[in-house]
Amino acid sequence: MIAEEYKKMLGQKSVIREIAEYGSERAKDIGYENVFDYSLGNPSVPVPQEFTTKLVELATSSEPGAIHGYSPSLGIESVREKVAQSLSRRFDMNYKKEHIFMASGAAGALAHALRAVTTKGDEVVTFAPFFPEYTPYVNKSGAILRVVPAKTDDFQINFAEFEKMVTPKVMAVLINTPNNPSGVVYSTETIKKLASFLQEKEREFGHEIFLISDEPYREIVFENVDAPFVAKYYPNTITCYSFSKSLSLAGERIGYIAVNPECKEAELIINMCGQISRGIGHNCPPSIIQLAVAEVIDMTADLSVYETNMTILYNELTNLGFTCAKPGGTFYMFPKALEEDAVAFCKRALKYDLLLVPADSFGCPGYFRMAYCIPTEKVKRSLVAFRKLAKDYQLECKS
Amino acid sequence: MIAEEYKKMLGQKSVIREIAEYGSERAKDIGYENVFDYSLGNPSVPVPQEFTTKLVELATSSEPGAIHGYSPSLGIESVREKVAQSLSRRFDMNYKKEHIFMASGAAGALAHALRAVTTKGDEVVTFAPFFPEYTPYVNKSGAILRVVPAKTDDFQINFAEFEKMVTPKVMAVLINTPNNPSGVVYSTETIKKLASFLQEKEREFGHEIFLISDEPYREIVFENVDAPFVAKYYPNTITCYSFSKSLSLAGERIGYIAVNPECKEAELIINMCGQISRGIGHNCPPSIIQLAVAEVIDMTADLSVYETNMTILYNELTNLGFTCAKPGGTFYMFPKALEEDAVAFCKRALKYDLLLVPADSFGCPGYFRMAYCIPTEKVKRSLVAFRKLAKDYQLECKS
Repeated sequence: MIAEEYKKMLGQKSVIREIAEYGSERAKDIGYENVFDYSLGNPSVPVPQEFTTKLVELATSSEPGAIHGYSPSLGIESVREKVAQSLSRRFDMNYKKEHIFMASGAAGALAHALRAVTTKGDEVVTFAPFFPEYTPYVNKSGAILRVVPAKTDDFQINFAEFEKMVTPKVMAVLINTPNNPSGVVYSTETIKKLASFLQEKEREFGHEIFLISDEPYREIVFENVDAPFVAKYYPNTITCYSFSKSLSLAGERIGYIAVNPECKEAELIINMCGQISRGIGHNCPPSIIQLAVAEVIDMTADLSVYETNMTILYNELTNLGFTCAKPGGTFYMFPKALEEDAVAFCKRALKYDLLLVPADSFGCPGYFRMAYCIPTEKVKRSLVAFRKLAKDYQLECKS
Repeated sequence: MIAEEYKKMLGQKSVIREIAEYGSERAKDIGYENVFDYSLGNPSVPVPQEFTTKLVELATSSEPGAIHGYSPSLGIESVREKVAQSLSRRFDMNYKKEHIFMASGAAGALAHALRAVTTKGDEVVTFAPFFPEYTPYVNKSGAILRVVPAKTDDFQINFAEFEKMVTPKVMAVLINTPNNPSGVVYSTETIKKLASFLQEKEREFGHEIFLISDEPYREIVFENVDAPFVAKYYPNTITCYSFSKSLSLAGERIGYIAVNPECKEAELIINMCGQISRGIGHNCPPSIIQLAVAEVIDMTADLSVYETNMTILYNELTNLGFTCAKPGGTFYMFPKALEEDAVAFCKRALKYDLLLVPADSFGCPGYFRMAYCIPTEKVKRSLVAFRKLAKDYQLECKS
């Protein structure tokens, strides 16, 4: 009488959770400042002061009904308008508010997008390494997730494998660039090749293949990195965005869907999102957060620390002999473990109070993820631990 | 390639929306203050000043990461603890934080509760008149909604009809007291009878039947009305609560699930809610709103205006010859239309700038809903319009 499918999910021990639990216990002994916690992707930089100022202005305004009342099911019109204008201005596109649906973060956006363009049994293709939550997002929408193996030299798209998997059952392709967990940004070349391949397949199959582009890390791109705006290259693009990382608002559940105005079904899809909401208990993202975000729509938190941390870690780890694609953005990097079994590797790292996440659940065994959204001074202090860990393996090789 | 089920939902013309659209157009001509809009259940009283003060304190605190960061998937622990303590204190119960899941309003709570205790094809029984959104909430969870016809003399439970419908396929019963749209509160006698009947059926069928109690109007109960706390009477109760109405925060999407500690599966159900979230794009209710609500957990907005409005309208309408069960709470009342076709009746009411909602979609044709969450002075000004409308029908009878 209890839904077994969810009960079963509870039984699956999460490696990430085990590591986090170990970290909490260890912190009690040696202090949290001495646990080098690279496990969680929680933004570490403060929200911009301007956001706080606007939030306070709204909270203390004379019309609390308007501030805290229901928003329309597609989002507050003025907010949708500001999102559309910002996207159009920044990426030279033609978004209007009719192309925007306000969502509860990228998770909410993906839940809506997947339900809009797939029905039961349809296939959705994504690329390893991928955010493990894609599995429940896709499966619980009724579709089936197919995963293209990773191209581990640069973590761009493995087209040879991809092409084999695109059958007429595929209704959507789900990408995440800049990527969690690899930190890699798909190049213009990759996106162009992907777009032209998908358009060819659309013609061949006689139906649309939607490109669902999950972009919570869009604003965290490092210097001189080629980071194309995906929708520019493919009409049937549904962009899923979150302000979680760009404004350090992960807990406030605010993001949006933007459907490329070039997509014939754009307005229909947006309106359908309002209907999809009715079944999943989403009414709207919090009203006051919608309004506050719209006031700082072109701002970001000071994200520079992420590139600083990346540079320190990338240099040190490659020096120590780790293989690692250089991140172009995000606050993740994705080195190869020093032994085949990344779970064993990450367990050994705990000896030096390094909390690393094995990438098996990201569809890429043998690698591990580091979330370096932690203070730079802590990153620096952690280097000794990495040296000790690497030395362990060198000694082992010699013996 | 577009999900037809949601596309179709778009095609269904909503009577409420038509009425609201008429109202907006009419407001342009005669001013919104002259349109007597009883169509929408948007709380009209301001949030308590204490809530605003706490919200501002949180927003300007020195730890923005802790305020705006991800909350755990079951909700912030300290918030769950405060909810549990408040419920236990107020209703003499034994809730602990392990029995509480923080949800995005009552809609989010219901979406989770339904998925936790039903699987595809199970039946959920509710009672007319009922909130129309129950249909997508239940159907999109995979279960099937069955509706017990209304007991129109007092809008308590129609047990004769209910008993016929409780087959072994029924895994949950969904009630809403105080009720939208009738305004009626289920009496202790009703709840006791319901509880004892369900316990008898649980024994007969050999499986639990969960009582999902949707309680967004719990704090809006009028003087001397018998308003029992449902869970007190039935162990397998899942209470779905929202702060939308009690604190006038409808847009901020904050509420909770509380599973009766007497329910054997209580903690399991709460933990499952964390898994259910993964498929529907809910991560948590907004962090800062969770924290702010917890600080004013035992407060409500000044809700007295709703009883004032109810009394004025109830007296006038019954004087004019309307049949109406006296509301015991909420900000709704539910009179019988003056002709059989409530849609035609509500259309005629528009002539006098009265926006009323025919109750066909609430499963109770021939009645109409009035949401009197509007200023009292406007309620008073609307009485002339009701008199004119009633007179229309009197003249018709005579002719």
